[in-house]
Amino acid sequence: MFDLIAFDADDTLWHNERLYRMGRERFHHILAKYKLGDTTEAIDERVNQTELQNLRYYGYGVMSFVLSLIEASVELTGGRISATDIEDLLKLSKEMLTDPVELFPSAEQTVARLSTGYPLMLITKGDLLHQQAKVEQSGLRGYFRYVEVVSDKSQGTYAAILSRRAVDPSRFLMIGNSLRSDIVPVIQLGGWAIHIPAELSWSHEHVDAEGPLGERCFELGHLRDLPAFVDGLTSRHSD
Amino acid sequence: MFDLIAFDADDTLWHNERLYRMGRERFHHILAKYKLGDTTEAIDERVNQTELQNLRYYGYGVMSFVLSLIEASVELTGGRISATDIEDLLKLSKEMLTDPVELFPSAEQTVARLSTGYPLMLITKGDLLHQQAKVEQSGLRGYFRYVEVVSDKSQGTYAAILSRRAVDPSRFLMIGNSLRSDIVPVIQLGGWAIHIPAELSWSHEHVDAEGPLGERCFELGHLRDLPAFVDGLTSRHSD
Repeated sequence: MFDLIAFDADDTLWHNERLYRMGRERFHHILAKYKLGDTTEAIDERVNQTELQNLRYYGYGVMSFVLSLIEASVELTGGRISATDIEDLLKLSKEMLTDPVELFPSAEQTVARLSTGYPLMLITKGDLLHQQAKVEQSGLRGYFRYVEVVSDKSQGTYAAILSRRAVDPSRFLMIGNSLRSDIVPVIQLGGWAIHIPAELSWSHEHVDAEGPLGERCFELGHLRDLPAFVDGLTSRHSD
Repeated sequence: MFDLIAFDADDTLWHNERLYRMGRERFHHILAKYKLGDTTEAIDERVNQTELQNLRYYGYGVMSFVLSLIEASVELTGGRISATDIEDLLKLSKEMLTDPVELFPSAEQTVARLSTGYPLMLITKGDLLHQQAKVEQSGLRGYFRYVEVVSDKSQGTYAAILSRRAVDPSRFLMIGNSLRSDIVPVIQLGGWAIHIPAELSWSHEHVDAEGPLGERCFELGHLRDLPAFVDGLTSRHSD
């Protein structure tokens, strides 16, 4: 039924968003001494807007995030941010880039189990070097036949990946936590998708799906149930 | 004779290093008002060291360069750099990332001509999003069967690329301006290489080859001579 099953990585197989939350907290801590009068929410909103505006320059990832924090810090403080505090933001970037990968519970068993029945692919977006380092560090590299680091997860990105591997979208299943990046574009392309919401996700990754996503899209509460679910799906459709 | 011919992109097919030189000049201009007493050479040396130390965090590319400039600016000014000047460095990053691609003379004819006889690949390192955007903008995308954006150009990187395409290194030719990234690792792997030195190259890309690089390595003065040279090579070896 499936010629290829692909996984998202960040916040699907391992923790990621909590690191950005930590980064935002550090940012608030640094700005606190400037007594800005902005609420935490207003500061977060400004950071978010700066990140979104900068996506077309910097793409996704830690470098993009920290360059946006620096830009927002200059604006929010009206140019008063000190060089020492900028230096702290640079330290933050290096801490984030070297933070150890921590797998979600049952990530390894799930991927190992599925890899015995299907060719698996990992599709992840962000800084090329950082994403590759995390894949290596995760210990999961061996279960994936292919690893794709992409700059964005649009419908066109998926179409290009599937065309390169000569996989028909109707025989492709994507698994991930982000409706925007992992689910909607794959469904629109005619593929199958399983959404496993993460406890923490970046607000940008939420989208309101316009209408139901159809009968090729499912939601699961936990990674550990994935192999049984895929088995059930396969046997139901081969009846 | 060759199953695959690959090109480097930056400073092989289009201008790149001159943009970084412009960036360094802007950096000197910004620092001038702090009356540091450091010579231009000393400042360049510090920037260079910061860049090299940061490669393991940030990899190659504009974001890495500008994050390193910001770090060096804090250190060189002893924490006196102003937020406004930091903002200027952020503007520099966006200017560099959107600077139009300018092809080297005869880049298009050369690539077009070779593409009629061989499958071509582009292998480039740097920011994923920026490198992809430059490839699209260059107008050369259609001549390349494959495009690989990599985080580093080590012997292992080339080995993995060739293994994925089932190409034997002895039937692979790489063309580029950097001895470190394009030539030495390919020769060490048992491949063929043509070095076309660029007028401007980052000092990091120079290496002193230990001994001659052997009879599978050539140097050409100009891209326009490449098709004739490859023809000559092929006919000589098929005699």
